[in-house]
Amino acid sequence: MALTPSTADFAVRTRASFDRQAVMRLMGARLVHVAAGEIDIELPFRTDLTQQHGFLHAGVVTTLVDSACGFAAFTLMPAGAAVLTIEFKVNLLSPAKGELLIAMGRILRAGRNVTVCEGEAWMRAGDERKQVAQMLATLMTVRDSGIEG
Amino acid sequence: MALTPSTADFAVRTRASFDRQAVMRLMGARLVHVAAGEIDIELPFRTDLTQQHGFLHAGVVTTLVDSACGFAAFTLMPAGAAVLTIEFKVNLLSPAKGELLIAMGRILRAGRNVTVCEGEAWMRAGDERKQVAQMLATLMTVRDSGIEG
Amino acid sequence: MALTPSTADFAVRTRASFDRQAVMRLMGARLVHVAAGEIDIELPFRTDLTQQHGFLHAGVVTTLVDSACGFAAFTLMPAGAAVLTIEFKVNLLSPAKGELLIAMGRILRAGRNVTVCEGEAWMRAGDERKQVAQMLATLMTVRDSGIEG
Amino acid sequence: MALTPSTADFAVRTRASFDRQAVMRLMGARLVHVAAGEIDIELPFRTDLTQQHGFLHAGVVTTLVDSACGFAAFTLMPAGAAVLTIEFKVNLLSPAKGELLIAMGRILRAGRNVTVCEGEAWMRAGDERKQVAQMLATLMTVRDSGIEG
Repeated sequence: MALTPSTADFAVRTRASFDRQAVMRLMGARLVHVAAGEIDIELPFRTDLTQQHGFLHAGVVTTLVDSACGFAAFTLMPAGAAVLTIEFKVNLLSPAKGELLIAMGRILRAGRNVTVCEGEAWMRAGDERKQVAQMLATLMTVRDSGIEG
Repeated sequence: MALTPSTADFAVRTRASFDRQAVMRLMGARLVHVAAGEIDIELPFRTDLTQQHGFLHAGVVTTLVDSACGFAAFTLMPAGAAVLTIEFKVNLLSPAKGELLIAMGRILRAGRNVTVCEGEAWMRAGDERKQVAQMLATLMTVRDSGIEG
Repeated sequence: MALTPSTADFAVRTRASFDRQAVMRLMGARLVHVAAGEIDIELPFRTDLTQQHGFLHAGVVTTLVDSACGFAAFTLMPAGAAVLTIEFKVNLLSPAKGELLIAMGRILRAGRNVTVCEGEAWMRAGDERKQVAQMLATLMTVRDSGIEG
Repeated sequence: MALTPSTADFAVRTRASFDRQAVMRLMGARLVHVAAGEIDIELPFRTDLTQQHGFLHAGVVTTLVDSACGFAAFTLMPAGAAVLTIEFKVNLLSPAKGELLIAMGRILRAGRNVTVCEGEAWMRAGDERKQVAQMLATLMTVRDSGIEG
């Protein structure tokens, strides 16, 4: 499927929207890849983001992958439109243990109103990289709502 | 379905496990209800947990509901066993706007190895309460793994 | 949530739409309850609907619950509009063994474009009734598409 | 991930198990590809499997993809073990209109007790092939239960 961004400055608009997600700052997440229908976000491991066994909390992993899917959908949005997550499902494949979490969102199907994305999260620990999560997400385009980005 | 906690001190063990979830502290979440198969967690609204439109990030809402489901399952675990989330699906029903998020986890079916939970999140804004999320989650009992709680 | 059917003859229209679902006839399913936002469908056990262990196939159970959710959403649709399933998630709680499957769909949230439904399937075996599936589904209202019902 | 079938005759055992799924016969489905962690099933279009708009019913598409995922997991099972679907989520991407449905199941992660599979369904209509569904499924290995295959 060819994915066509609807505005020339989609990467600038996507980065600006990411910078307005306060929770990404709180967690220390960085937007490291923006292309039409593609987003990568990285998060260095921090102990204040863990659950009771010392792994990154499943909800933290999910937050990153959800954002990656949301911004992947956003890259194709017309100016003035926003993207809302309707729902997602995520499988936690392995404990999120290591130094760096990489969350990736990719568009599987872009419709006029509904976009479906796949997301993955991988954990880098030393020289190894292990997949820790797989997501399937549904997002909706919101036009003329007064919200944007 | 009758839900029987497997140890008399299940509430104490559940609260101790919650206190070890560092990310709950970071977000400012409080465990406000513990019963056999039932957990409620509250989170006062904070702007550093928002997405780009000023609502609580879907991932933050999800983190709370996932924790509520996980600890609901944990209330029935034998001593020495841990609970891991295998997967969940969440529908975001309304923007999470208001003063207080209440996340609830309830066991739908408790099996020997697999527990299925339902989760809900509600947002209190002034005198109103609105449901913002619905979750269906699958958790696994882990025995003799060296991890506990 | 108050659920208001948008036309007085919603039950007639829903039954007519059900009768056009050929696969319901093939499987022997019956529409036994229609109310605003509520559908029950029954399916007597048949060996030609089973998987390799003699239980009703998970896909058959799912087909019934998906239809129950779809028609529950349809009860609120304006004349000329159709409902399409965007996605669903289903947990299979117990093997579907017994004489009669009862699938129930209920609206959790009805929006202008997106409806979220919960579905359940129960199996009756002698005097017992056991829940075999729990679903959370997202449906979309389609207007002016040339398809209806 | 290297996927190792646990018995030399895994393909024979998988085909035998498929032949015992009565509902596959009822629908006219054919097992067309068996490899370690990989299954393809085909279903020629039939009007008695449709919903009210003349497309294959979402539940029928789902039944095929669920079976493809289940048998993909089964290819790695030790002799005497069975596979049960715990849960799955499926996005319906396009109406299932055309001559032939191809359902594919692939293992994403194979654990000792839990296997995660991805499934896809594509519809062939003339010279075109269009994806109609994407699935993410969780399956459980059942040992020493008296059920097999």
